[in-house]
Amino acid sequence: MSDERWMALALELARGTRGQTHPNPRVGAVIVRDGRVVGLGAHLRPGEAHAEVQALRMAGEAARGATMYVTLEPCNHTGRTPPCTEAIIAAGLKRVVVAMEDPDPRVRGAGIARLQAAGLEVDVGLFRETAEAINAPYLTGQALGRPYVWLKLAMTLDGRIAAADGRSRWITGEASRRRVHELRSEADAVLVGSGTVLADDPDLSPRLPGARPPLKVVLDGRLRTPPEARLFSRGEVLIVTTPEADEAKKAALRARGAEIVAGPRDVAFALQVLFERGIRLVLVEGGATVAGAFWAARAVDRVSLFVAPKILGAGLPTLAGPPVPLEAAVPLEALEVERLGDDLVITGRPRFMQDSSGRTEEAARRRP
Amino acid sequence: MSDERWMALALELARGTRGQTHPNPRVGAVIVRDGRVVGLGAHLRPGEAHAEVQALRMAGEAARGATMYVTLEPCNHTGRTPPCTEAIIAAGLKRVVVAMEDPDPRVRGAGIARLQAAGLEVDVGLFRETAEAINAPYLTGQALGRPYVWLKLAMTLDGRIAAADGRSRWITGEASRRRVHELRSEADAVLVGSGTVLADDPDLSPRLPGARPPLKVVLDGRLRTPPEARLFSRGEVLIVTTPEADEAKKAALRARGAEIVAGPRDVAFALQVLFERGIRLVLVEGGATVAGAFWAARAVDRVSLFVAPKILGAGLPTLAGPPVPLEAAVPLEALEVERLGDDLVITGRPRFMQDSSGRTEEAARRRP
Repeated sequence: MSDERWMALALELARGTRGQTHPNPRVGAVIVRDGRVVGLGAHLRPGEAHAEVQALRMAGEAARGATMYVTLEPCNHTGRTPPCTEAIIAAGLKRVVVAMEDPDPRVRGAGIARLQAAGLEVDVGLFRETAEAINAPYLTGQALGRPYVWLKLAMTLDGRIAAADGRSRWITGEASRRRVHELRSEADAVLVGSGTVLADDPDLSPRLPGARPPLKVVLDGRLRTPPEARLFSRGEVLIVTTPEADEAKKAALRARGAEIVAGPRDVAFALQVLFERGIRLVLVEGGATVAGAFWAARAVDRVSLFVAPKILGAGLPTLAGPPVPLEAAVPLEALEVERLGDDLVITGRPRFMQDSSGRTEEAARRRP
Repeated sequence: MSDERWMALALELARGTRGQTHPNPRVGAVIVRDGRVVGLGAHLRPGEAHAEVQALRMAGEAARGATMYVTLEPCNHTGRTPPCTEAIIAAGLKRVVVAMEDPDPRVRGAGIARLQAAGLEVDVGLFRETAEAINAPYLTGQALGRPYVWLKLAMTLDGRIAAADGRSRWITGEASRRRVHELRSEADAVLVGSGTVLADDPDLSPRLPGARPPLKVVLDGRLRTPPEARLFSRGEVLIVTTPEADEAKKAALRARGAEIVAGPRDVAFALQVLFERGIRLVLVEGGATVAGAFWAARAVDRVSLFVAPKILGAGLPTLAGPPVPLEAAVPLEALEVERLGDDLVITGRPRFMQDSSGRTEEAARRRP
């Protein structure tokens, strides 16, 4: 059987739509008959046809009796487009291979059940882990009702993200900066604190030809962002502040094109605002206060440390936060280490302990 | 020509004596005649025969007309042993290949000149860089009159070497700890601050079968080291303190076998004391205060960061010291990155800038 070959192709189609489908998942579909591809499809952007429908259109009559390989369970409900299950049944497919179920409560196995009820052979689970990894932001949204948070920090070998004067620009080299621009182009939003805006005045746009500009988000409880900041030069800017924020400052920032929302000063509120706007992948770029707040809220799904081969010896630490005992250190899983120019890039998934707050207190009492 | 082959063998002989020749250099010698090895030698410990003499003894009459490959220029003076140059000339060697000159002021080219004057063919410089790397501690001693300082720090990914309560033991994994024991077995001395003794109570012995125990050195201006500390359990202990140190405490520590020296509270004094005792390679194991003091004194020749794949989020930074601007970050050269169990080991040579103090002040004035 070459099921693996065709599902791998469907996964490649899904990968190809990085950064353009949210809040929808990335999905690829391949229709195969008699060992030949007769249809290819991918979901390209919200409101447009699903991957299955694209592939069926390409296949036309050739779909009859064929097998579809699709990276996510076909939908069984009418959203902005009609249900994919009905299109698959109507096209006369014989078999559907599905990488993973769709956790969307409107689907969640019902698509598979509908296909089986119509007499189609359905296999589920081929390359499930890869499919889950491709749709990590979508799955985080379904499971937690918040965007997937990718924390990016540039630091020296001794874990300093900025000098004592707060400046942090150009810690890392050219290759690392290019990689950051790639990350930005894949994210729905890029988020910093007002301290970073004041210290470094970053543009936050992905400087790549044709790159889709992410929403620029500034957490700024006191509206310290200056209206002349570089980030207003292009793209959309959203400032998350508090109800106490000064009206004159609001007006000045709105005049620069910023949208301003006010609410409780916490990570949960900011993530809720972003989620409701359809943001599913947010790149948090610091500084230490913002990174520390996301960390303390356990709202970090992936960490990328861009480490310059330098030792600063003093300066601002990576994460600002209250003291914690050694036992509360959070392991990074699926660690990847890459040399990028002179820099190191270390990426992993933090494994926050469920019982860490309890253990933390106990460990603190055991202090020698 | 197979000069490379024989010099590579001589360098292996020198490598094999790691940690046992100081304050003398590590030297290997190979005598070759008609394409066959007829003599092998290495300097094994101070006071014993030099590598050249060992090889000549093995070669006996076969040395006549042969070529010697030696990793360091032969000595031309009478120290604890007679000059090697005279032994080489007397044995009737035809040619000597030398990897590097000996910077010892009693040699410094005079050995080479003596051989040439006696009619021998002498080639200098084959694998010079390797020879220099093998003898980095000896060369640092000759050039700077202080031991070679290897700074070892165990830290989390965010650059914390200890939790907020000061404890730092077991940040890294089993494989890293084994490697640290190997480093200790190669060092002449292992040095920590009294804060580390109080927080972690380390033994500091290399836990390896048959390992040569290094001198254990504690920088302890106020004699806070408790007489019941684990490091007194075996091996020699030297405590470097100040003239103001309490006499009763001194007596208590001496009763545990410690040697105590008193002088100015600075890195230079400690290094001078160690150098005068013949120490050529000292492994500085922290904590942050001691590491920061060596860093500030620019008395660090090599850094090994043992990085656990964890994020602490808060705790004690790697190096304690005054704030510095970003421009003063010290690059690490010849960077090596290794996965060791779950940990990363990052090793490099700090390149301290000659003009850094001046630039530092200027950069501080340019603060935005």
